[in-house]
Amino acid sequence: MTRQRDDDDAVVMTTRRRLLRDGAMAGGAVAIAGLTGHEAGAASSEGANLPPNVPDWMKTPGEPMGSQPYGTPSPFETNVVKNISKNLPQYLSASGRTPLQDLDGIITPNGLFYERHHGGVPTIDPAQHRLMVHGLVDKPLIFTVDDIRRFPSESKIHFLECSGNPTYRKPFGKTASDLVGLLSCAEWTGVNLKLVLQEAGLQPAAKWVIAEGADAAALTRSIPIEKCLDDALLVYSQNGERLRPQQGYPLRLFLPGFEGNMNVKWLRRLHVTAEPAYSREETSKYSDLMPDGVAREFSFCMEAKSIITRPSGGQRLTARGFHEITGIAWSGRGKISKVDVSVDDGRTWQKAQLQEPILTRALTRFRLPWQWDGQPAVIQSRAADETGYIQPTLEALIAVRGDNSIYHNNAIWPWRIAADGEVSNALA
Amino acid sequence: MTRQRDDDDAVVMTTRRRLLRDGAMAGGAVAIAGLTGHEAGAASSEGANLPPNVPDWMKTPGEPMGSQPYGTPSPFETNVVKNISKNLPQYLSASGRTPLQDLDGIITPNGLFYERHHGGVPTIDPAQHRLMVHGLVDKPLIFTVDDIRRFPSESKIHFLECSGNPTYRKPFGKTASDLVGLLSCAEWTGVNLKLVLQEAGLQPAAKWVIAEGADAAALTRSIPIEKCLDDALLVYSQNGERLRPQQGYPLRLFLPGFEGNMNVKWLRRLHVTAEPAYSREETSKYSDLMPDGVAREFSFCMEAKSIITRPSGGQRLTARGFHEITGIAWSGRGKISKVDVSVDDGRTWQKAQLQEPILTRALTRFRLPWQWDGQPAVIQSRAADETGYIQPTLEALIAVRGDNSIYHNNAIWPWRIAADGEVSNALA
Repeated sequence: MTRQRDDDDAVVMTTRRRLLRDGAMAGGAVAIAGLTGHEAGAASSEGANLPPNVPDWMKTPGEPMGSQPYGTPSPFETNVVKNISKNLPQYLSASGRTPLQDLDGIITPNGLFYERHHGGVPTIDPAQHRLMVHGLVDKPLIFTVDDIRRFPSESKIHFLECSGNPTYRKPFGKTASDLVGLLSCAEWTGVNLKLVLQEAGLQPAAKWVIAEGADAAALTRSIPIEKCLDDALLVYSQNGERLRPQQGYPLRLFLPGFEGNMNVKWLRRLHVTAEPAYSREETSKYSDLMPDGVAREFSFCMEAKSIITRPSGGQRLTARGFHEITGIAWSGRGKISKVDVSVDDGRTWQKAQLQEPILTRALTRFRLPWQWDGQPAVIQSRAADETGYIQPTLEALIAVRGDNSIYHNNAIWPWRIAADGEVSNALA
Repeated sequence: MTRQRDDDDAVVMTTRRRLLRDGAMAGGAVAIAGLTGHEAGAASSEGANLPPNVPDWMKTPGEPMGSQPYGTPSPFETNVVKNISKNLPQYLSASGRTPLQDLDGIITPNGLFYERHHGGVPTIDPAQHRLMVHGLVDKPLIFTVDDIRRFPSESKIHFLECSGNPTYRKPFGKTASDLVGLLSCAEWTGVNLKLVLQEAGLQPAAKWVIAEGADAAALTRSIPIEKCLDDALLVYSQNGERLRPQQGYPLRLFLPGFEGNMNVKWLRRLHVTAEPAYSREETSKYSDLMPDGVAREFSFCMEAKSIITRPSGGQRLTARGFHEITGIAWSGRGKISKVDVSVDDGRTWQKAQLQEPILTRALTRFRLPWQWDGQPAVIQSRAADETGYIQPTLEALIAVRGDNSIYHNNAIWPWRIAADGEVSNALA
């Protein structure tokens, strides 16, 4: 075995840091900056494992294959887990949030995908599960999971978000996960719902489809027929593998851009009707009490929103100088068209760079290079989507909706950076 | 709690299947077909858990939140794991293959991402890990992982493939995983390598970068400077979360489109040089002995390739009629431009539908609707990329390269379907 050794290069750690430098990316609107790195040249040693020394983990064989036929994260990442709400009734409104501030890119790994359950997570044998399609159809039908998998398939990358993410009255979350962690994004594979409804034969009076889950809550929502005949999917796989139990194994409804609870998990029944069901989850819950005393119901679509994930609440800037500001933006109405970022408490805004591919109803990662001068600052992001809609401030939202609502808060969320680098919720 | 019940709809299972029907997708080249589903109408019962009965798992609360702060797949999916090679020297050429035939879409979940190790998997404390950049640079530098994370970041979806996937001489694999399972695809986040090399300052004589891993094999490969200054990344995250140990935690090199072993894991050293290292892994291994006795070396790029994953070896068609043929295509040279599928042993070919987004050097999912007549058949796919290159047959490949090579076999791989529906490797 050839091992590259360069003992003549006496490279060791020094504590002297390079000065930070700015540059402008050729042909782009976004400035970048080089930074960091410890010059290697003098002679000293900070640790036996550091270059040019050979670290301990190179001196013996590593872990063998086979101990993990299904892999898990590093033992040094055990703090990156779902953020499980305390003090919530376990079988009524249990939830676990995605640790957005620890994640990069747009894909949420399945092990960290957010959860929200109304009656716990059922353990379903897929061989016994059935989907019934009945009501205003020519031929009521019952499908096995294998039947559904024989239909032509589609794969789409889409976000999924709970409508109560966050509430209006108690925006006390410390981290990005605390505030908007009921949000994740994955590649979903399944069948266009239209094909299955066509197989049963929709009757002219069909205007709604009542979807029922096979959980202990029998969670039930009414879906307008227009959505069912557009981009709705019957999903069986997520990020390549079959759905996790927490995401509706073996079959869920997926309605791109619609609030999370309508994407009924453990889907067992589609009842085609002329009227909505006015079920518990669309009357006593998941409707918004407006200032005039009228409840806004059937507020399906998740409007454009964004959040800076780094730096964000609970993190700390350890040095002045270059920091990349990065976060995620999304809209239930289509593609994100622009994200602006302010680093001066909203006085001025700069256009952030959007990472390709920009996909409809998916998370879009944005980035802005920033030089922190070590002074207190308030940073925030503002998303716009392809319909021209612009993410509002919390103040503007409350002026219209009041503060009785607990759903569909898509306000801009600022982070405060203290002189010591600590980042905190600027609205808490 | 409102539970939707429709006891007046006496819907139950029957064994009568609907006849299969064909349709043509409006405005598209691809025909689709409706199928499956059991008519619901007569009176009988096949099981207490089937509609309209309420299944057992709806009668009691499901699993509570919190038992799995990092989630795992359903207990009914325990067979979907990495396919770990037997009889390979554990600390020389251990490998675990992705179960491609069980997956949908293009993203491989991290728990099923393929592995290939030369000295086992080191357990590295990220706080102790360092990356050294030295050699033909103005200022040799040593970076912590946090230093690297302070650089501007990028996220890209790319495939990664082992160059020996499969070998030429023993194409005896039964499943798609056995044959080409040393292939996966993920969203990678990291830093453009060019920025880090610029920080150190490349000298004019710099032509190669020797990358060394911090595993017990100190795996070492020589990378042309052109690639390092193009799309090469220093990666710390995969599908949103930090790299798994098996994928190089806390830092790996990523060279889009280049053979897997060059994407050095556990990256500790980048030595900038004028000449390649001619290391073990680019001389005794990862070079191809051609028929004239000359070894083809530095064969970096993975050429265009595809495989049908469903139906594929080890699976069985349970009924005549409609089946979707689906698979994946990829090219180290850029985007997939076309996939043709033959269902008559290569006599005629049809253009498959490609799932958007079609990304450079990423898996692309293709699909073709098919009516199986119940007769024996041979099905296969043939990919082309944006350079105009077309995936060759194994015969054509061997005519040029001989059969001493064990790397860079990108041949078309046909599956044989027997009259009883069993699918097997047509070249075994």
